[in-house]
Amino acid sequence: MSPAPTEKPLLATVLGKVQDRPPMWIMRQAGRYLPEYREVRAKVGDFLDLCYSPRLATEVTLQPLRRFDLDAAILFSDILVVPDALGQKVRFETGEGPVLEPLQPDGLGALQPEKALERLAPVLETVTRVKSALAPEKTLIGFCGSPWTVATYMIGGRGSPDQAAARLFALREPEAFAALVDVLVDTSIAYLAAQFRAGADVVQLFESWALNLDDIAFVERVIEPNRRIVEGLRRLLPDAPVIGFPRGAAGMIGKYAEMTGVNAVGLDYAVPLQFAAGTLPPTLGLQGNLDPLRLVAGGPQMEDRARAIVSAFRGRPHIFNLGHGIVPETPIAHVERLVEVVKGG
Amino acid sequence: MSPAPTEKPLLATVLGKVQDRPPMWIMRQAGRYLPEYREVRAKVGDFLDLCYSPRLATEVTLQPLRRFDLDAAILFSDILVVPDALGQKVRFETGEGPVLEPLQPDGLGALQPEKALERLAPVLETVTRVKSALAPEKTLIGFCGSPWTVATYMIGGRGSPDQAAARLFALREPEAFAALVDVLVDTSIAYLAAQFRAGADVVQLFESWALNLDDIAFVERVIEPNRRIVEGLRRLLPDAPVIGFPRGAAGMIGKYAEMTGVNAVGLDYAVPLQFAAGTLPPTLGLQGNLDPLRLVAGGPQMEDRARAIVSAFRGRPHIFNLGHGIVPETPIAHVERLVEVVKGG
Repeated sequence: MSPAPTEKPLLATVLGKVQDRPPMWIMRQAGRYLPEYREVRAKVGDFLDLCYSPRLATEVTLQPLRRFDLDAAILFSDILVVPDALGQKVRFETGEGPVLEPLQPDGLGALQPEKALERLAPVLETVTRVKSALAPEKTLIGFCGSPWTVATYMIGGRGSPDQAAARLFALREPEAFAALVDVLVDTSIAYLAAQFRAGADVVQLFESWALNLDDIAFVERVIEPNRRIVEGLRRLLPDAPVIGFPRGAAGMIGKYAEMTGVNAVGLDYAVPLQFAAGTLPPTLGLQGNLDPLRLVAGGPQMEDRARAIVSAFRGRPHIFNLGHGIVPETPIAHVERLVEVVKGG
Repeated sequence: MSPAPTEKPLLATVLGKVQDRPPMWIMRQAGRYLPEYREVRAKVGDFLDLCYSPRLATEVTLQPLRRFDLDAAILFSDILVVPDALGQKVRFETGEGPVLEPLQPDGLGALQPEKALERLAPVLETVTRVKSALAPEKTLIGFCGSPWTVATYMIGGRGSPDQAAARLFALREPEAFAALVDVLVDTSIAYLAAQFRAGADVVQLFESWALNLDDIAFVERVIEPNRRIVEGLRRLLPDAPVIGFPRGAAGMIGKYAEMTGVNAVGLDYAVPLQFAAGTLPPTLGLQGNLDPLRLVAGGPQMEDRARAIVSAFRGRPHIFNLGHGIVPETPIAHVERLVEVVKGG
């Protein structure tokens, strides 16, 4: 059955519809592997200037849909616009990633949650512009970083492989940590609700650092704040569709899905297909999970794996995606082939 | 029932014995958190010089047992002595970790597996010396790195958070990769057998980079090579006790345990207690899995968590350990308290 003219297949899948072929998008689909993206990126200084320019951010958001038959556009932005809007200035250093002045336990009072939404107005303007430019069958995905993940940058001051600074902060300063999470939960609810009002059809919660936590910490720092965001958002917008992506959740992914109330769960590529298909509730949407390096290498191994993923999740709501962001060295021809394989067989 | 005078409680647990209180050791127990270790370390230039000095390596191996009531000594060495012994020279740069000249697909012919064991003679001499100095109730643990983990360093030339170089190499050069794994499997079998003959009571296979692999890659690169090592080792030494530690194995840990034939599985701290206790075979030994940063932070949260781990694995063979190596900033008083809690209640 082909979709009605205005149905959005990807949104429908998030809401539980089973499709013959999975709709798809690609994490970081507007990114450095595209020459047209690099051209726009070269026009601005700091990476955040791109996120805060509605004109340029709209342009790069739409670029991948001009090339590939993808079912969704995702707002071009960054999870760190939230701390930046809270007043903890973020800059991106070439080859180093984001850099912030690390938050101290007594520094919470300096955050300005009351000003955050106003400062995020250019990002919301991008959502509006993208929405008006997007074909009606395409889903518009908004997003924010989940509180733990955002906190790891706010506390550590930069990315780190083990998030040690934030993990120690949470153990040593539980009250300050809880207060920080409160700020991030409330700001995220308001920010996501504003994205929906500006035109987003669905939002994704990026918990990029859900790994490196034991089960107690995972419940406290990942499940509970994500659950509060979903709950708070739905108080404002009942039935708001939410995808949760707890990267590295591993053995806790079932509990995450059950307790947070998200409609769909993003699977990183380390989640075994059998494990996901066999242990997660059959009505839960699953998104993922091709290893981005299989897409870089291309050829039969990539096609076989893509087909195995489609096959493993057949008969349940499935959105095809990578299991992590597409990397800059990915050949465009491999992306074209992946779309053919997923869409065509 | 107290153990017979010469019984080694930790070895007995690896072999399946259930104890009232778990025996324990600590990954990286001979390390920088100990001032007496730092004193010895300062005497040598490169870190590998310490590994290749039987006198100094024996000394640091024994240091933690003088301070703490631990049930095992672990050979002081490094997983990268194997590539070094194969002729791919390794040096340790301060603050950077290990550095190797990255292996090229056509560079396998230059490896010298026939010379590896001779070059590892000083490490084997350390095993002999430690054994003769160790009280009879203490278990001596030998080890090597698992092939995938060692290969990530040989191919990437250094540690990396995503092991991208090795992951791409394995996809693009499957034959060269398989040949490298063959060399590492054979060398590891010979090396571990020699450790047993020198006095090791049990060996641990460190698969430190079992994360970042999809299920196909996990079977090919982790399970299969580890299985071949266990099988090959037991052809030489039937019933050789082996602990496998696939860090980040997450949803694949059950399959790892079932297919490799190891006696016990090391759990990283992200493995949920309920998941491990509820899904892994009840006769399988479990080792772990306190978050090392809980030990740094100390206090009630550390004690509560240690007790929860002991309690979750009660009634099955359990070796208490951290879920990753102890970190340099760990206060010694916290280690003393942890041993009391695990041993005493």
